[in-house]
Amino acid sequence: MESCVFCRIIKGEIPAAKVYEDEEITAFLDIAPASERGGHTLVMPKRHMETITDLSEEELNAVMGVVRKIVKALLKFGEGVNVLQNNKRVAGQAVAHMHIHVIPRFERDGIVVEKWVAHRYKEGEIEKVAERIRSFLKD
Amino acid sequence: MESCVFCRIIKGEIPAAKVYEDEEITAFLDIAPASERGGHTLVMPKRHMETITDLSEEELNAVMGVVRKIVKALLKFGEGVNVLQNNKRVAGQAVAHMHIHVIPRFERDGIVVEKWVAHRYKEGEIEKVAERIRSFLKD
Repeated sequence: MESCVFCRIIKGEIPAAKVYEDEEITAFLDIAPASERGGHTLVMPKRHMETITDLSEEELNAVMGVVRKIVKALLKFGEGVNVLQNNKRVAGQAVAHMHIHVIPRFERDGIVVEKWVAHRYKEGEIEKVAERIRSFLKD
Repeated sequence: MESCVFCRIIKGEIPAAKVYEDEEITAFLDIAPASERGGHTLVMPKRHMETITDLSEEELNAVMGVVRKIVKALLKFGEGVNVLQNNKRVAGQAVAHMHIHVIPRFERDGIVVEKWVAHRYKEGEIEKVAERIRSFLKD
């Protein structure tokens, strides 16, 4: 997609610090890393698609194989690793080309990836929600 | 593992609102959902393991196939979806049994999954970090 910044990086029109590349998948450093020491990596399919639901099974396996490799590498770089994949703008997806953040973590690094109120289900509500999701899974 | 709360759920010793189950994988609702309307789902292998690097390739493909199904279902439940997988306590991993959060998102839901300072690499630093990660990838 011409207007997609990740497609332009993939085509080589915009430079990026690549850490991995094969025919289908690319991985490069986020230029604005969450971690002060850097290493925050974006893994994505080269083919333009918006969300994780748009990947074929083979593409999903390929992209996750690379994510796992990057996690393993970043566990040598930092002390922990977050894998984060946002679908749709409301979920914080900033670029509409499916990508997976792999973020090295260090003690007291100031990064927050989980900030939410732990809600509680009302009596009987959890089973209703589970049933609703199970019905969506059948579609 | 006897002391693992997720292993106890998997063995049926602790109840859970399951949304998916097969021989290898289980998915159930987080009892303390990030989303006020619920639906926050945890997907995991039944076999106890700590991080994403401990999964076999087949197990990773199986778990991600289920994650993708749950994302698709939750995109009908909410307006967006976050997929989050934390490795090690420093990264926010609360239970040392590898699991993937699949979180439905709604406008103004108050959930924060990305709160960090966007750091910048100093001149020439990004290539050094990329080279370091590429060297770890070779191990």
